[in-house]
Amino acid sequence: MALDGVHALVFDVFGTVVDWRGGVAREAAPFLTRHGAVADPAAFADAWRRRYQPAMEEIRAGRRPYTRLDVLHRENLEAILPDFGLDPAAIPEEELAALNLAWHRLDPWPDVVAGLTRLRAGYLLAPLSNGNIVLMADMAKRAGLPWDAILGAEVSRAYKPSPEAYLRTAEVLAMRPEEIALVAAHNGDLAAARRCGLRTAFVPRPTEHGPGQGTDLAPAEEWDAVAGDFGALAGMLGL
Amino acid sequence: MALDGVHALVFDVFGTVVDWRGGVAREAAPFLTRHGAVADPAAFADAWRRRYQPAMEEIRAGRRPYTRLDVLHRENLEAILPDFGLDPAAIPEEELAALNLAWHRLDPWPDVVAGLTRLRAGYLLAPLSNGNIVLMADMAKRAGLPWDAILGAEVSRAYKPSPEAYLRTAEVLAMRPEEIALVAAHNGDLAAARRCGLRTAFVPRPTEHGPGQGTDLAPAEEWDAVAGDFGALAGMLGL
Repeated sequence: MALDGVHALVFDVFGTVVDWRGGVAREAAPFLTRHGAVADPAAFADAWRRRYQPAMEEIRAGRRPYTRLDVLHRENLEAILPDFGLDPAAIPEEELAALNLAWHRLDPWPDVVAGLTRLRAGYLLAPLSNGNIVLMADMAKRAGLPWDAILGAEVSRAYKPSPEAYLRTAEVLAMRPEEIALVAAHNGDLAAARRCGLRTAFVPRPTEHGPGQGTDLAPAEEWDAVAGDFGALAGMLGL
Repeated sequence: MALDGVHALVFDVFGTVVDWRGGVAREAAPFLTRHGAVADPAAFADAWRRRYQPAMEEIRAGRRPYTRLDVLHRENLEAILPDFGLDPAAIPEEELAALNLAWHRLDPWPDVVAGLTRLRAGYLLAPLSNGNIVLMADMAKRAGLPWDAILGAEVSRAYKPSPEAYLRTAEVLAMRPEEIALVAAHNGDLAAARRCGLRTAFVPRPTEHGPGQGTDLAPAEEWDAVAGDFGALAGMLGL
């Protein structure tokens, strides 16, 4: 069976488990309207997310100490507001803080809760996300994601795809890397995990970036498992 | 109401949530019998636990880098075996590893699962234990403890009652210390948490150390809440 010998499934979250684009757009829409910005909320979500990798790269490259994603999201929010005609200094602090929590309130894709519930009967489940612990905990509580633990960047003090993000996760789980599989919708994340010895499961999310998405529509390598959604993955694993 | 303004409840685990003495004795009994040791399994559990604080003290005092509790438990196990007439070198590695996992398989006190389930409706719940993450995750999965996240020594890289154990937990939760309450059966743990600004809830566990327990039977200070068990605590908090 695919993933023989695997005891823990760890998950990419933004894009793989939850629809960050739809969720951020939903939360941004009333904020933009209230402040008179004429903007497509999905474009606002895209702009915000576009600064995600560059912000983490400062930390991966060692130019900045580990800083949790909530802080990076807040900096990135203030950085993009002028592009939408808004002055962050003119917006009440509470409103910026509340909008930043949009990332804590993302909805899972429709197959996720039922799929994870099945998978949990056979594996230890945890996010291996670049999101920080309280972000993941708030999200899970709101959406009913049945994690056994919350792992990821804040536990490993490293952002994916740095090898430490995967290897320290294995150390915390007290498992060999090959006893852990990463489930992700992103070929790059899976490739980095495989280089560290983890097993790999690809679940495409063809509308993560909206209609017309051109990336990560198909597996780029022969991953250990490929499934259409979390329910199909559970079935493939005999659960 | 008690604990007004508190958003997260964090829990001491060994003794407060689970019966470590009964659980370790249950797991040790067949091991001792198999190896011909004539010993009371509860006395074996007590002996193992007696080395818990001294082992952590090496780390709290800075004489040893952070080392997770599973490793300390294993060292302590090998250290006490001769006191029971057993030579650790003569016992197969798999048996020692399996017995060390006794700490992952402790049963909660009878009120815990129902009480936590009620409390979870009003608070973010997490262990703030000296136990490491996979120990807490295995325990929670087996016993059905509904944590929202697993915090504690391995996240904060500090053992209670070091202030860092409490203060870094607040930092990870992105909360002020007074927005967090520690629930514990141990006055010393609560006193350390209070010194860091956390709120406090005392739930006595009068048989943690077996019949005739002489410590922690009553609150030593005016804690913010005192409840007979987790169900009573939930009721006191309006849940």
